[in-house]
Amino acid sequence: MNKGLFITLEGGDGSGKSTVALKLKEALEKKHSILHTREPGGSKIAEAIRRIILDPANTLMDAKTEALLYAASRRQHLVEKIIPALNEGQLVLCERYVDSSLAYQGYARKLGIDYVKRINEMAIENYYPDLTLYLKIDPALGLERLGTRSDKDRLDQESLAFHKAVFEGYEEVIKLDRKRFEIIDASQSLKQVVSDCLRVIEARFDV
Amino acid sequence: MNKGLFITLEGGDGSGKSTVALKLKEALEKKHSILHTREPGGSKIAEAIRRIILDPANTLMDAKTEALLYAASRRQHLVEKIIPALNEGQLVLCERYVDSSLAYQGYARKLGIDYVKRINEMAIENYYPDLTLYLKIDPALGLERLGTRSDKDRLDQESLAFHKAVFEGYEEVIKLDRKRFEIIDASQSLKQVVSDCLRVIEARFDV
Repeated sequence: MNKGLFITLEGGDGSGKSTVALKLKEALEKKHSILHTREPGGSKIAEAIRRIILDPANTLMDAKTEALLYAASRRQHLVEKIIPALNEGQLVLCERYVDSSLAYQGYARKLGIDYVKRINEMAIENYYPDLTLYLKIDPALGLERLGTRSDKDRLDQESLAFHKAVFEGYEEVIKLDRKRFEIIDASQSLKQVVSDCLRVIEARFDV
Repeated sequence: MNKGLFITLEGGDGSGKSTVALKLKEALEKKHSILHTREPGGSKIAEAIRRIILDPANTLMDAKTEALLYAASRRQHLVEKIIPALNEGQLVLCERYVDSSLAYQGYARKLGIDYVKRINEMAIENYYPDLTLYLKIDPALGLERLGTRSDKDRLDQESLAFHKAVFEGYEEVIKLDRKRFEIIDASQSLKQVVSDCLRVIEARFDV
């Protein structure tokens, strides 16, 4: 590759993004230099911004302030980590990126996909991924998977309703830029999911 | 007044915004409830965001990250302080607001007025001031005033060039929304500047 390749993994909670990303890294790093990252990705500034967002004491946080802060954190991670790796010709595997904000904040939290998209485009400019692997899973199944590894509280009805909204959000987001996405059936075995991901990466790019 | 009135004070460093705002508050509060504020204005979240911007350790801060953070801080101050005061029918006097970002970051720091304007409109929506008092002063004179109260380092050539750029930036910003601005000659005596401000406020509004 003369230039880097920017691949993101997206999907609801419990869709297996982290596990799949690790397996993809293992498979791809035999031939390529890989940066596996997720926001805030070790950027000191991006982490400081996230701490403000996540601080439970910040109960007065406005939803649009939060969206601007996520965009600021994304910008800094992009500039510090992703762009330098792409400029070195690396393959970047990033768990979650702009589409997460569109599905979660834009759609599920009802800020509006268009509004959140406009903010994010101020932050990322033209740095859209070359490919986005959408790990599609029924929200109830995703939550069930999460339930086996962490607190069961997340399985309550309100939570399921929210995760259904995120699922619908991703459907809307994919429509906006259909060619960038590959939809992967994440209800399959890990091995099959990874295999499907590798197949579409190889079909699209000379890796 | 049935609803509040939102007045901002703008101008380069040394133009006298704080002093003038205090005098306006004294004059206007005889008849009206006044909120005199400036960003981050005591909002805990807005202050936390400003600390990240101003932390000298954050040398890797990207200029667009910074613009997004300023917009986030502005949003939070607006939502927590300005909007509630306007809803209560108060007259809000705010030192610096969106026009400062346009002149300083958009023009003088060369991010582009249009770019910074778009980010800020994500943050402020339709909350533009009803009136903006632009305290116009020759940048060299502004710096000279500052010099008498603080470090003389700011008077060096580079600093003057930057402040000239801010001055030019304000000229451009004013053109974009000419009717909102009143240009006040800030090289006059404090008494005359305050008198001019009061005159234009009274001419525009029933106060």
